[in-house]
Amino acid sequence: MKPVDEKPLDLRVAYIGGGSRGWAWGFMQDLAMDAELDGVVSLYDIDAAAAEKNRIIGNKISAHPRAVARWKYEVAGTLEDALTDADIVVISILPGTFAEMRSDVHTPEKYGIWQSVGDTTGPGGLVRAMRTVPMYVKIAEAIRDIAPRAWVINYTNPMSVCMAALYEVFPDIRAFGCCHEVFGTQELLSDILDNLWGVERVPRQEIQVNVLGVNHFTWFDSASYRDVDLFPLYEFFVKKYYDEGYENTPYENELNRHFTCFHRVKFDLFRRYGLIAAAGDRHLAEFVPAPWYLKDPETVAAWKFALTPVSWREEDLKKRLARSDALVSGRRSPQMEPSGEEGHLLIKALLGLGDIISNVNLPNRGQISNLPLGAIVETNALFRRGHILPVNAGSIPDNLLPLISRHAHSQRNILHAALNCDFSLALSALMDDPLMAGITIDAAAEMLRTMLENTKDYLPGKWRTKMLMPNWPDRQFYRQT
Amino acid sequence: MKPVDEKPLDLRVAYIGGGSRGWAWGFMQDLAMDAELDGVVSLYDIDAAAAEKNRIIGNKISAHPRAVARWKYEVAGTLEDALTDADIVVISILPGTFAEMRSDVHTPEKYGIWQSVGDTTGPGGLVRAMRTVPMYVKIAEAIRDIAPRAWVINYTNPMSVCMAALYEVFPDIRAFGCCHEVFGTQELLSDILDNLWGVERVPRQEIQVNVLGVNHFTWFDSASYRDVDLFPLYEFFVKKYYDEGYENTPYENELNRHFTCFHRVKFDLFRRYGLIAAAGDRHLAEFVPAPWYLKDPETVAAWKFALTPVSWREEDLKKRLARSDALVSGRRSPQMEPSGEEGHLLIKALLGLGDIISNVNLPNRGQISNLPLGAIVETNALFRRGHILPVNAGSIPDNLLPLISRHAHSQRNILHAALNCDFSLALSALMDDPLMAGITIDAAAEMLRTMLENTKDYLPGKWRTKMLMPNWPDRQFYRQT
Amino acid sequence: MKPVDEKPLDLRVAYIGGGSRGWAWGFMQDLAMDAELDGVVSLYDIDAAAAEKNRIIGNKISAHPRAVARWKYEVAGTLEDALTDADIVVISILPGTFAEMRSDVHTPEKYGIWQSVGDTTGPGGLVRAMRTVPMYVKIAEAIRDIAPRAWVINYTNPMSVCMAALYEVFPDIRAFGCCHEVFGTQELLSDILDNLWGVERVPRQEIQVNVLGVNHFTWFDSASYRDVDLFPLYEFFVKKYYDEGYENTPYENELNRHFTCFHRVKFDLFRRYGLIAAAGDRHLAEFVPAPWYLKDPETVAAWKFALTPVSWREEDLKKRLARSDALVSGRRSPQMEPSGEEGHLLIKALLGLGDIISNVNLPNRGQISNLPLGAIVETNALFRRGHILPVNAGSIPDNLLPLISRHAHSQRNILHAALNCDFSLALSALMDDPLMAGITIDAAAEMLRTMLENTKDYLPGKWRTKMLMPNWPDRQFYRQT
Amino acid sequence: MKPVDEKPLDLRVAYIGGGSRGWAWGFMQDLAMDAELDGVVSLYDIDAAAAEKNRIIGNKISAHPRAVARWKYEVAGTLEDALTDADIVVISILPGTFAEMRSDVHTPEKYGIWQSVGDTTGPGGLVRAMRTVPMYVKIAEAIRDIAPRAWVINYTNPMSVCMAALYEVFPDIRAFGCCHEVFGTQELLSDILDNLWGVERVPRQEIQVNVLGVNHFTWFDSASYRDVDLFPLYEFFVKKYYDEGYENTPYENELNRHFTCFHRVKFDLFRRYGLIAAAGDRHLAEFVPAPWYLKDPETVAAWKFALTPVSWREEDLKKRLARSDALVSGRRSPQMEPSGEEGHLLIKALLGLGDIISNVNLPNRGQISNLPLGAIVETNALFRRGHILPVNAGSIPDNLLPLISRHAHSQRNILHAALNCDFSLALSALMDDPLMAGITIDAAAEMLRTMLENTKDYLPGKWRTKMLMPNWPDRQFYRQT
Repeated sequence: MKPVDEKPLDLRVAYIGGGSRGWAWGFMQDLAMDAELDGVVSLYDIDAAAAEKNRIIGNKISAHPRAVARWKYEVAGTLEDALTDADIVVISILPGTFAEMRSDVHTPEKYGIWQSVGDTTGPGGLVRAMRTVPMYVKIAEAIRDIAPRAWVINYTNPMSVCMAALYEVFPDIRAFGCCHEVFGTQELLSDILDNLWGVERVPRQEIQVNVLGVNHFTWFDSASYRDVDLFPLYEFFVKKYYDEGYENTPYENELNRHFTCFHRVKFDLFRRYGLIAAAGDRHLAEFVPAPWYLKDPETVAAWKFALTPVSWREEDLKKRLARSDALVSGRRSPQMEPSGEEGHLLIKALLGLGDIISNVNLPNRGQISNLPLGAIVETNALFRRGHILPVNAGSIPDNLLPLISRHAHSQRNILHAALNCDFSLALSALMDDPLMAGITIDAAAEMLRTMLENTKDYLPGKWRTKMLMPNWPDRQFYRQT
Repeated sequence: MKPVDEKPLDLRVAYIGGGSRGWAWGFMQDLAMDAELDGVVSLYDIDAAAAEKNRIIGNKISAHPRAVARWKYEVAGTLEDALTDADIVVISILPGTFAEMRSDVHTPEKYGIWQSVGDTTGPGGLVRAMRTVPMYVKIAEAIRDIAPRAWVINYTNPMSVCMAALYEVFPDIRAFGCCHEVFGTQELLSDILDNLWGVERVPRQEIQVNVLGVNHFTWFDSASYRDVDLFPLYEFFVKKYYDEGYENTPYENELNRHFTCFHRVKFDLFRRYGLIAAAGDRHLAEFVPAPWYLKDPETVAAWKFALTPVSWREEDLKKRLARSDALVSGRRSPQMEPSGEEGHLLIKALLGLGDIISNVNLPNRGQISNLPLGAIVETNALFRRGHILPVNAGSIPDNLLPLISRHAHSQRNILHAALNCDFSLALSALMDDPLMAGITIDAAAEMLRTMLENTKDYLPGKWRTKMLMPNWPDRQFYRQT
Repeated sequence: MKPVDEKPLDLRVAYIGGGSRGWAWGFMQDLAMDAELDGVVSLYDIDAAAAEKNRIIGNKISAHPRAVARWKYEVAGTLEDALTDADIVVISILPGTFAEMRSDVHTPEKYGIWQSVGDTTGPGGLVRAMRTVPMYVKIAEAIRDIAPRAWVINYTNPMSVCMAALYEVFPDIRAFGCCHEVFGTQELLSDILDNLWGVERVPRQEIQVNVLGVNHFTWFDSASYRDVDLFPLYEFFVKKYYDEGYENTPYENELNRHFTCFHRVKFDLFRRYGLIAAAGDRHLAEFVPAPWYLKDPETVAAWKFALTPVSWREEDLKKRLARSDALVSGRRSPQMEPSGEEGHLLIKALLGLGDIISNVNLPNRGQISNLPLGAIVETNALFRRGHILPVNAGSIPDNLLPLISRHAHSQRNILHAALNCDFSLALSALMDDPLMAGITIDAAAEMLRTMLENTKDYLPGKWRTKMLMPNWPDRQFYRQT
Repeated sequence: MKPVDEKPLDLRVAYIGGGSRGWAWGFMQDLAMDAELDGVVSLYDIDAAAAEKNRIIGNKISAHPRAVARWKYEVAGTLEDALTDADIVVISILPGTFAEMRSDVHTPEKYGIWQSVGDTTGPGGLVRAMRTVPMYVKIAEAIRDIAPRAWVINYTNPMSVCMAALYEVFPDIRAFGCCHEVFGTQELLSDILDNLWGVERVPRQEIQVNVLGVNHFTWFDSASYRDVDLFPLYEFFVKKYYDEGYENTPYENELNRHFTCFHRVKFDLFRRYGLIAAAGDRHLAEFVPAPWYLKDPETVAAWKFALTPVSWREEDLKKRLARSDALVSGRRSPQMEPSGEEGHLLIKALLGLGDIISNVNLPNRGQISNLPLGAIVETNALFRRGHILPVNAGSIPDNLLPLISRHAHSQRNILHAALNCDFSLALSALMDDPLMAGITIDAAAEMLRTMLENTKDYLPGKWRTKMLMPNWPDRQFYRQT
């Protein structure tokens, strides 16, 4: 008996949000093209029809001539069914519909608050958290009860709050959060090597970076390619392109004007703080005081990034639905190209099939020495059989610390506001948000009430009572007694 | 030989800022009326004439019929002379003149930033720190070299940054910072006992409170009088007076419209956070986002506190100068009443003459479990022979933590900006200030340049070069290498 | 309505171990002689007859002409009855009988291990913990369910493990552990003032000390009386009496040769470590490697302290039983003198009737900066209405740290061995004990099995299976997976 | 200009202890056989003749036909010369001669203390530290002044104290400590795969382990090969070979009876603690109480490891000197085989030529969550251009923590005793050593005096005075004042 020679068999993946149009297909293709893994993917989605379509698409991908692994796709009728015997759980859901997201993103505009994304931080991210956390509580409870030893990969936003909810409900969960924003900045550094020195097509994986921060507000305090320190290069580049910006071929496949990124925000942050901000400008801009880059649409235009309206997302969804139908019907063939994501590689590493070091969102166990223990932080970690071991990323530089730590603190309050349906705490957290810089408390309270009302279909019943109540806290439960 | 029966003799006090008109006289009277201490006070002031006047006044106070201790007052020609053989060092200086303070307080008004005090936080507090820190570096070096075992009491603002500078230069310094803002809130609680229950004239010392926060933004998470929890009482009172506010007889002797405090800010903070904010409303309002209470003069008026113009301070100084002359000439007699301050009692406690528990500013050694170690925090401490032992104050409640921790982080950056004449870091710290909520970076940079220019007589020469330089950081010295 | 003028009424005290002969009577007298408290004491004991006798004695004490408070004493039939509506819970039990204690203290002698007390640390303390912890689990659960807001005073040994068990089961318990060993060392310092300087009868409360360590292995790193640093005095005294030792009138009322203490161990520890060890020599000697002071009875005699045989305890109990009968029958009158304990004063402080600073055992929340968080440590704390706030005691000096921290670590293992009936962990903890210095593992395992067998009437059933099992751990549950 | 294509040139290595016979040759061969590095090695040794011989040998190795890199070897006349322009510093010295080591190892035998190695812990390791630390102070000062940005690799024992000395003198030093003991345990796991499952010759690098502990007392809490958890395998193997032990082909090239290792100590520790102890049994046995495995030579024999007498080292040296002469004269050719060490790979990784994760000794920055910050710990770290980033190794299990943490605490005291020539502190640290389990303080003091006397040629002059002084501490400098 030589188990070490055998390929893992019957790996079971539960895919929550398995009706996804787009991201799921890439994951299916990545699995199909990797000979070292095999098994069953159980798709679960509250939109059962969408899951069924993806079952068909998944099995087609698996049967594609270029596929080297034969995965089987199933639809699970319930969350519990999906999780039964799962080795791996993928969570990638859209919390609510675009109607709710429209309120998240656009209601604040009536109060002079402009959000370029609106799904992570700011009023939009906060209200999205209010409806997402109850879903994550259910998911975490189900994982705790049914698949407590499964590895859980989260892709849903707001990443930090979703991860925090999982760990709050089930502290022993083996969950980690993946995000490709960092990849994009590695791509930019690769581009710079080409632009300045003619070193072509360096794969982003070979751009070595030390990552630290919170999701979508991540930073590099070192970057190198082989023996070359990329910071002097980056500084030279930033000075050259500071005024006009630089448009590289971005990481996202689907590009259009709403994802425009000339990196001017990134360059400006480098100029002010000396570190490389490692996310798209649309995300970065939302983490700092509103007047900096999101004062109004003109300011956004001047910094050469863009606000992403929900109407665009709706249009985009139509295209993706059409593509789904075409894939189901066979009018269109799967692309069978690597997605650029690393999910399947991380799974392999956790099973013992090759170490990987990659950036990941995890509770802080000291990997960032000056953010609170337990806060969800993004750093590199070593993925290795049975373990995700964060790499010690050092500390956030003092000049940046106030910008980052305020979000780490607020995310905890947002989580607890969502868990307890606590309007007063939600309002405090909102007032701590840098995008709320110029807003009075009364206006903020009115806006928050409106936004919660707009998303009420996805809120626990307790919220309704809370919001009718006068604004006074019932008991002073925050203090020592 | 029974040394335990003897009264301490030849206690030597170095008074830096010994030309003070007002605060010094209270201290002199407190000393004169306490039979357990005796010795020499050496007055040092860059305004030597003012120190000389206080020498005369001090000796008159000491010779007053109601004096029970015979202190001798001297003028020291240099800082070094003052510190020689000092057991106690009192630091209470005005950094710069009212001309500089006028810029601190009123220049930001041109940018729509209103400050009710302008000496602690906000742009005024930051620029005041820039000129104060170099003075404190010199003082700390002198104490380190001449009187390293002396107890050092700081009364100068900005308290937190001054204290941090002392400990940065000389980590073994035995310094602590005293402030009476907490006393005022104890007085308010005493008033409430009278107002609601008819319990009259409870001395503020008998109002037991647990103090936590940073100076001028301190909070009580418990308060009691004998066996009575004062929180329900306070809540009842706040609800009763929330709309109109309540004007108690405040702690400050010198009251006028610029120190008006109806506690409406304090009541509103209680409503939002469930803890008792323990400083004057003028101070509290400066620590939270500008739109809350300091949007504009009308908002200030609606919250029933007041902006303190520097012109008032100038008028007030004239009165105090006149009083000084009257005291020197003998036209006026010292009041010989307790000042309400505790400085002399703390000194006695440190010498072994009776334990005291009082609120004090010290580097965080864990007394507040969720603020950074080393940050200057205000909590209760036990004063006892040879020791100041902070009382474990617990943790800042999560809902308040973002409001408070951002100042703790910023104060560290302000200190280092001052120490290194670092414009870029000063600007970052300024942009982190909640009063800057609505301001663009360009406007802030222009404002900061103007304000530094206005205070240039008190800045090290290095600043000048720094400010002429383009805004680019020379080296990326914040990052790991 | 002026509640602040009223005396607390109907204070309800649950006394667990209420059949105690001796300590309980002192507590009853302290209560009787304090006019500020009043109420009911509910006595609960597994020896119901003993509780009944104490009920009679308590009521007699309360009716004594010199009593100023009229407490009522009742017997509770069950733990739950005792705890119902309790404001205060006192726990002071004897876990097991003298038969078990005989094994704890004397079985190790067969292996060359001599214990001067055998109830705190060493093999005796460990095995006593094994039978005490299950009792404390039940008590903690009952407090959690019936009287979660009651203040809980523990007097039972092993103090640290008992306290740890309470907090493990019910983290929100408001429990603290009191011990008078520190008082004895304050008395010694008072004696020294008299002996060297003729300052007579300084009350021990006026000897100011900073306390740090674990119970029965506590230390002073400063001590003063008024303005006098007592360390130079103590050093002079130690040098004078180092060889012959010094016998002061010790704190304990009941003195005889088995409690002899010439402080030679204490003096030797001062000579080696520079700090004042603050417990009786019998306790101190058990915390350090056996060859130092407990090599054999001759070594003990040379250091002029004594081994306390259980036979003495049995004799002593007979005397106390006789006294109990005499008190019940009225042949003997209560002494009506202060016991020297502080329990009733601490209760008053917690109710708002006067601050007290005293040494107390609590989970470490940072009060000792270099012992593990959560370990039960002894330091000063401020007792104040509704709060026990540890005073920041600083850090254990590096030279002492290995001696103290090993016990802090071991106590955690002892607790978990008791909670899980884990023989392997109990053996590891035993092998970490400094009294086991010269013993092989096999001998230790045999001894531990014998001792557990001797105490089996008080062990959970699970232990029996565990001990029959081969010594191999079933699963490697200590490691990461 | 494409610097990224260029091979690093003119890398300068300072080799302190460059006269080494054996280890240096392996390093030279590793360098010669790696085409990616090139440069100059400057050999410094207090034995200049030995350095000169190694210069010749190094240059011969570099000229060997199988060499692919052309390194140049030089002799440096002074430490300062060696360090000038150094990019890399290797420290591998023998502190003192075998005469001193004879006392370290064999003097304690007269007191019944048997040491299997005597260079790391126990009395031998402590006294070796006393003479090594002053040398390391000089080295650290020179690095600070001459080559502050160089990477510094330490190979000298006692590893933890040497590393601590470097960081104490120069906190910004970029030093790390390498040791191959962990490799040997990886080899054992590879052997087990062969022995039990017939999986042959798995390179130790493919045995994935999580390392935690202090040098020579390191542990694995997880181990895997590809997708296989090796813990159940190891448990099966331990049970099979527990009684007789298992002799694998050990990592060390030079094997004889003094290095015998049947892993019985390792297996017993697994049985007791559930983790894999990862060092040779000779080392492991020295870290636990003497009676366990080092009671006497018979006990050592029963556990099937061996005491290494210094006489063997002397014999061995003769052989190595002969080999040196043969290499210099050309009678013997260099072996040109990989040494099995990783030093050159770590250097490459730090220059950007490929990430490596390997075990390394560094100050604790949180990589082990329950050992003191700043203690020198051994864990995995990621070596990457410009950085050594410790991998978060989790925490030491509670059952093991007392065994390991006592050494972490003691090493700090040993360092400070050496820095301050503090006999009292050295004696305390010695008494904390588990090998001293059965020894009285008086005997220990006498032994320590003798051993220091025997090594006095390598001790600072201050020691002499200290040891003549009476045993009383002059000042109570450990306490707060």
